[in-house]
Amino acid sequence: MAKIITLTTDFGLTDEYVGVLKGVILTRTPEARIVDLSHLIERQNIGQAARLLLSAYRFFPAGTIHLVVVDPGVGSSRKLVLVLAADHLFLAPDNGVLGPILESAGCQAAYEVRCEQYYLRPVSATFHGRDILAPVAAELAAGLAPGAVGPVIAPRVLTKFTIAAAVLDRQQGKITGEIIGRDHFGNLQTNITAESLQELHGDRKNPVSIEVKNTVISGIQTAYAQKSEGELLALINSRGHLEIAVNRGSAAGYLGAAGGEKVTVAVK
Amino acid sequence: MAKIITLTTDFGLTDEYVGVLKGVILTRTPEARIVDLSHLIERQNIGQAARLLLSAYRFFPAGTIHLVVVDPGVGSSRKLVLVLAADHLFLAPDNGVLGPILESAGCQAAYEVRCEQYYLRPVSATFHGRDILAPVAAELAAGLAPGAVGPVIAPRVLTKFTIAAAVLDRQQGKITGEIIGRDHFGNLQTNITAESLQELHGDRKNPVSIEVKNTVISGIQTAYAQKSEGELLALINSRGHLEIAVNRGSAAGYLGAAGGEKVTVAVK
Amino acid sequence: MAKIITLTTDFGLTDEYVGVLKGVILTRTPEARIVDLSHLIERQNIGQAARLLLSAYRFFPAGTIHLVVVDPGVGSSRKLVLVLAADHLFLAPDNGVLGPILESAGCQAAYEVRCEQYYLRPVSATFHGRDILAPVAAELAAGLAPGAVGPVIAPRVLTKFTIAAAVLDRQQGKITGEIIGRDHFGNLQTNITAESLQELHGDRKNPVSIEVKNTVISGIQTAYAQKSEGELLALINSRGHLEIAVNRGSAAGYLGAAGGEKVTVAVK
Repeated sequence: MAKIITLTTDFGLTDEYVGVLKGVILTRTPEARIVDLSHLIERQNIGQAARLLLSAYRFFPAGTIHLVVVDPGVGSSRKLVLVLAADHLFLAPDNGVLGPILESAGCQAAYEVRCEQYYLRPVSATFHGRDILAPVAAELAAGLAPGAVGPVIAPRVLTKFTIAAAVLDRQQGKITGEIIGRDHFGNLQTNITAESLQELHGDRKNPVSIEVKNTVISGIQTAYAQKSEGELLALINSRGHLEIAVNRGSAAGYLGAAGGEKVTVAVK
Repeated sequence: MAKIITLTTDFGLTDEYVGVLKGVILTRTPEARIVDLSHLIERQNIGQAARLLLSAYRFFPAGTIHLVVVDPGVGSSRKLVLVLAADHLFLAPDNGVLGPILESAGCQAAYEVRCEQYYLRPVSATFHGRDILAPVAAELAAGLAPGAVGPVIAPRVLTKFTIAAAVLDRQQGKITGEIIGRDHFGNLQTNITAESLQELHGDRKNPVSIEVKNTVISGIQTAYAQKSEGELLALINSRGHLEIAVNRGSAAGYLGAAGGEKVTVAVK
Repeated sequence: MAKIITLTTDFGLTDEYVGVLKGVILTRTPEARIVDLSHLIERQNIGQAARLLLSAYRFFPAGTIHLVVVDPGVGSSRKLVLVLAADHLFLAPDNGVLGPILESAGCQAAYEVRCEQYYLRPVSATFHGRDILAPVAAELAAGLAPGAVGPVIAPRVLTKFTIAAAVLDRQQGKITGEIIGRDHFGNLQTNITAESLQELHGDRKNPVSIEVKNTVISGIQTAYAQKSEGELLALINSRGHLEIAVNRGSAAGYLGAAGGEKVTVAVK
């Protein structure tokens, strides 16, 4: 069965850029399956792309090739890399966009992309996604060995990008974290994980309260529908993180929050 | 040949949610063909999703699986259902989104989705599209019998959602309907069908006039180009409904109409 | 291997129109590969669609079928045509949208689409993309000979659409062109080609200056990253045209430019 190639870019959907990536891939490897993750990453927002990729990759089969083109440094000396992690292949500029995956899954192998024989010619200085990454992804989908893309590089030299971790203070019975993003529905994702909440309130006998922007939310629900329409609530979302939401509404609008706001969870 | 799965959601295109649905499906059934109908349904707008699905499904081959995730009640007691209608399969929350199809095509069979052995584990409380509907769609595409998804349910217990019908008054020579939506071009769709117009003016010898928002439109055109650029007109659109349009312009903008406005058609 | 069909429309992504095109194609030719180029062409903007298609088609394999539905004249007497150029097949309304490709690649053959036996029935007056072009594209992908779609027409009767060329004045050492579009990043594309710049400054020993909206840019860079963040620059973009850009920013925003602005390049 043909390999899957996912695409994550900040290209938008108006221009031909995404279609051109697909044309280059299908010209080389007609049987490749291409899946769009998102092309609406904010321009050059490496952190947003990193979080999205971290949330998405595990829902694809092992061996999937994830192509990321959020590349503010195109044409500079930044490297292009192929990273193997959790049995997936990630092709991206070495700008930190793979950082959270490397941190959570570890690195099985990393290579600098240098296999010029596979590049589209001439290579432009402004669109390495099209001229380098797409053809290399197509070759990998067709069976090229990862090691054939270029020299091995040590994982420790890859550019880091760490999503700030929330801090658990067991003595005070408190977790301090922050809002790290919002989704299409206006749900606010925090950097507080289900695991740290489990550590905080253990057997869940002790109720918690969540404070964000001077608003206190009592308890953690298991579904949006547990609160009335328009009410603010907290729950563990489908990414395994604490989320602030409004049932059938937008928490981002309700709280006027956009990311970066402090969130604390305390045992009552 | 592989089964087709269509996707209709209110997820937007910025987050990874749509890509994750596809990853889940392709992990189970690599040969599935996935087609996006729309991911820009207004948040939790069941009526918009219902009308879109009704307009689209018949252009796919019999046996197509239509997956709908517009699900404001996720995590509540609302059921997930598989409905067979017009030889197509519809997988959706039982919230009325399939109502217009059931009303127009009837129900061949309906099942409650309960086949937990196929669910993604653990099942989140907030993303049943990913954890339940996508894996079940993938299994159906791979050949699972519809009856294997769960117990039969009686069509009459399915949640209804009826698009308000226009009213034909033969004695007065008049149809009273309303605007039920607008498309990307600003064309205004009404709930007045070609069939009811046929009943009204029969052999089309009697010209009609259409009134909407105190504006009178004379006659029904067969193409936008039959009026000059910028002129308001009425025609039977590609969905078989009376539509108010502006040649090379936006009727929604022209009339300041957004849906719900009364429309009357009268024989002159 | 299955033929590729690309789609370029002004349908937007909210309605079911794009999905319906795909349903019609896959019903006829289940093995067709469908690739979206853009569905966010401005409503009825033939020039934008023409430029996008010209930039994109060459990245697909020979034999690809490019379906274009930007069709303000639908239902009028405008023809639908199949054009062979550069070993690709283009199916579109004869409204000039193929003009730039014909001008740059020449015409290998042109046919008027008249093969009614393949149309969807009944043919609506408002959606020939669905009822005529999509089924014909599907038949071509399944092996229908181009000549079977209808009578040969002479290339010279096809509607022209010429992208205004920049003017090179060798004596004055100057090129006068204009901004012909902006992309998602706010990069401004001009109609000044790399070839005409090569003619102007020959061995590149003579530096050039670019003037646009009373702003002078010195020299042509090879990558965005050669200027500091926020700085205006000029380079040859991935389409082979002179582009005005801002490193990690938007030149359209910086200059308040939207298209049509005069651009001059002069040898210093």
